[in-house]
Amino acid sequence: MAMKCAASSAVRSLLSSSSSAFSRNLHAQGEKKKIVGVFYRGNEYAKSNPNFVGCVEGALGIREWLESLGHQYIVTDDKEGPNSELDKHLPDTHVLISTPFHPAYVTAERIKKAKNLELLLTAGIGSDHIDLKAAAAAGLTVAEITGSNVVSVAEDELLRILVLVRNFLPGYHQAINGEWNVAGIAHRAYDLEGKTIGTVGAGRIGKLLLQRLKPFNCNLLYYDRLRMNPDLEKEIGAKFEEELDAMLPKCDVIVINMPLTEQTRGLFDKNRIAKCKKGVVIVNNARGAIMDTQAIVDACNSGHVAGYGGDVWPVQPAPKDHPWRYMPNHAMTPHISGTTIDAQLRYAAGVKDMLDRHFRGKEFPEQNYIVKEGQLASQYR
Amino acid sequence: MAMKCAASSAVRSLLSSSSSAFSRNLHAQGEKKKIVGVFYRGNEYAKSNPNFVGCVEGALGIREWLESLGHQYIVTDDKEGPNSELDKHLPDTHVLISTPFHPAYVTAERIKKAKNLELLLTAGIGSDHIDLKAAAAAGLTVAEITGSNVVSVAEDELLRILVLVRNFLPGYHQAINGEWNVAGIAHRAYDLEGKTIGTVGAGRIGKLLLQRLKPFNCNLLYYDRLRMNPDLEKEIGAKFEEELDAMLPKCDVIVINMPLTEQTRGLFDKNRIAKCKKGVVIVNNARGAIMDTQAIVDACNSGHVAGYGGDVWPVQPAPKDHPWRYMPNHAMTPHISGTTIDAQLRYAAGVKDMLDRHFRGKEFPEQNYIVKEGQLASQYR
Repeated sequence: MAMKCAASSAVRSLLSSSSSAFSRNLHAQGEKKKIVGVFYRGNEYAKSNPNFVGCVEGALGIREWLESLGHQYIVTDDKEGPNSELDKHLPDTHVLISTPFHPAYVTAERIKKAKNLELLLTAGIGSDHIDLKAAAAAGLTVAEITGSNVVSVAEDELLRILVLVRNFLPGYHQAINGEWNVAGIAHRAYDLEGKTIGTVGAGRIGKLLLQRLKPFNCNLLYYDRLRMNPDLEKEIGAKFEEELDAMLPKCDVIVINMPLTEQTRGLFDKNRIAKCKKGVVIVNNARGAIMDTQAIVDACNSGHVAGYGGDVWPVQPAPKDHPWRYMPNHAMTPHISGTTIDAQLRYAAGVKDMLDRHFRGKEFPEQNYIVKEGQLASQYR
Repeated sequence: MAMKCAASSAVRSLLSSSSSAFSRNLHAQGEKKKIVGVFYRGNEYAKSNPNFVGCVEGALGIREWLESLGHQYIVTDDKEGPNSELDKHLPDTHVLISTPFHPAYVTAERIKKAKNLELLLTAGIGSDHIDLKAAAAAGLTVAEITGSNVVSVAEDELLRILVLVRNFLPGYHQAINGEWNVAGIAHRAYDLEGKTIGTVGAGRIGKLLLQRLKPFNCNLLYYDRLRMNPDLEKEIGAKFEEELDAMLPKCDVIVINMPLTEQTRGLFDKNRIAKCKKGVVIVNNARGAIMDTQAIVDACNSGHVAGYGGDVWPVQPAPKDHPWRYMPNHAMTPHISGTTIDAQLRYAAGVKDMLDRHFRGKEFPEQNYIVKEGQLASQYR
């Protein structure tokens, strides 16, 4: 099925004269490109691990290869404002690689500036840092390394569920602060077993989470646009919920597994959070802006939400005074779940493969396209 | 099989005149007992949750029942030294209930003082806080609520594995300290997928952990005195290792799942830790004294052990200056994994059932006995 789509789509793009980015690339085979990568800086950690390729210094481990082909490769972490390194290089950049962990916000204005731009690659998953409509209108291709870190994110979701349901962090703080007060932890620590867990979205990551939850003997629910096929649903052991607002009041734990789109921005506002069970735990490693920031703070303060955990923030890096840093019962971190060493190696390999295909005028794996020939991928429509 | 053992053992005890505790109890049916419970204090948390029965104030929720039967029920957290509440009540106590979370250390000296003592119950699992040989010699019965918190402990083990392998805690500290440094986390964060995990001991808790690990696509190993039956081994997907020292160098993660006995005390000393792979993660929710305290500190400082996590300490409460509180890359907490609200409800129900059987001169479930008729359970021999 996927192969058939890819084939017919390749035919379409060869026939279509409106496929500007793709055809521009076809005509440009052999041309020397300027590639810009925006990554987080490794600093004192850069040399600590030979597989730490995801930082500026590691540069995805593709510098030697790119330069051997005669391309220019600029890497930076300086991405904010009109005087940033990113903006300095934009006018003659052909390919921009960025990550969700330290996102280069590719606005319509920046796209306008980047006259030579052909391709925007996300090293990881989630391309909401790009104005996708503007990219489509400009005939750019946007693609990500679909699947490169889905396992990493699903593992981290289960970690945060356990941290919050088991009330781990107050115990850790007692340990490092010289204290011992079992009651201070145990009065709100629960087993995961027997609880009801619902995922809002059951795509690649949601399914992997459900599979990992299966032996915990929980009651598993999922809400999605699409129902799984009956065999997979049975194997995973999760029940389909047709209505989000009907699922929420049943859940002890809610996990967000959907992309940030115009439809999902602010989806969990004050009213929707009020529909959740009192004492619910919410884990969101998807995107911070799916939540109404203040509604989450208020619900954590009131105790309606017993725990909120995630690694995604409305803007990244999160400002020092972001209220999610200081609300009670949270398990927040910087955006890290998809950038384990294992994930870095996978998305670095994926970026190399996509660049190689791009240079040779070849199609990407179909599931990697976010914007292709002026069209947004279905999950972003 | 278990039923047959219980039956024949009941016959043996009826026939045996040396079964002093058991026969003392048979003769004493209807007698009013003095029961002492030693639990952690709930303080300001005592009233926060109606199911918080594991604290002194909650008293396992059995006060009304015990007093309605005419028994005296004393609860305290004051357990240390000859002037403690525990010592004050010992001389005329019939039944002593204690927990591993706030252990009443029942020494030979205390057993000598406790002239009326018949029964020592552990609300939870692990009776190493009792001098079992002295208890056996005095004809006491020692029993625990086998199975009451095995799921709780196994879940917590997986939590600590993830916390350490994924390098969660530095990220959390960045969040609460207003920082954002993805590299500081990511340079030593790994997926669990694909790693080799070995459990030292695969009894009830070890098996539950292995079952929960199965969907993570790891390489699972176990060392135990007994090999699982082939069907169970296949279902769990773990490979049996005959020699502990042969398994250790293969493991990225080692989890301790054995009781503290004369054989396991100090088992992980400097030499054995040196046999582990450099960068190993060790999780120990079994008993702190299975480790050589200083050897763990040294290995965490040198980086040979990349992470050490657990909730058990050589003495509990752990002193303020215990070095495990201050070594790098740890995930320590007070002893909490077996005292979730769910576990408390289960072990409280188990204690009630065992007291009821004791009052009526009935046998306990065979697997609950730790010392019976002068004999230690096999795992403590």
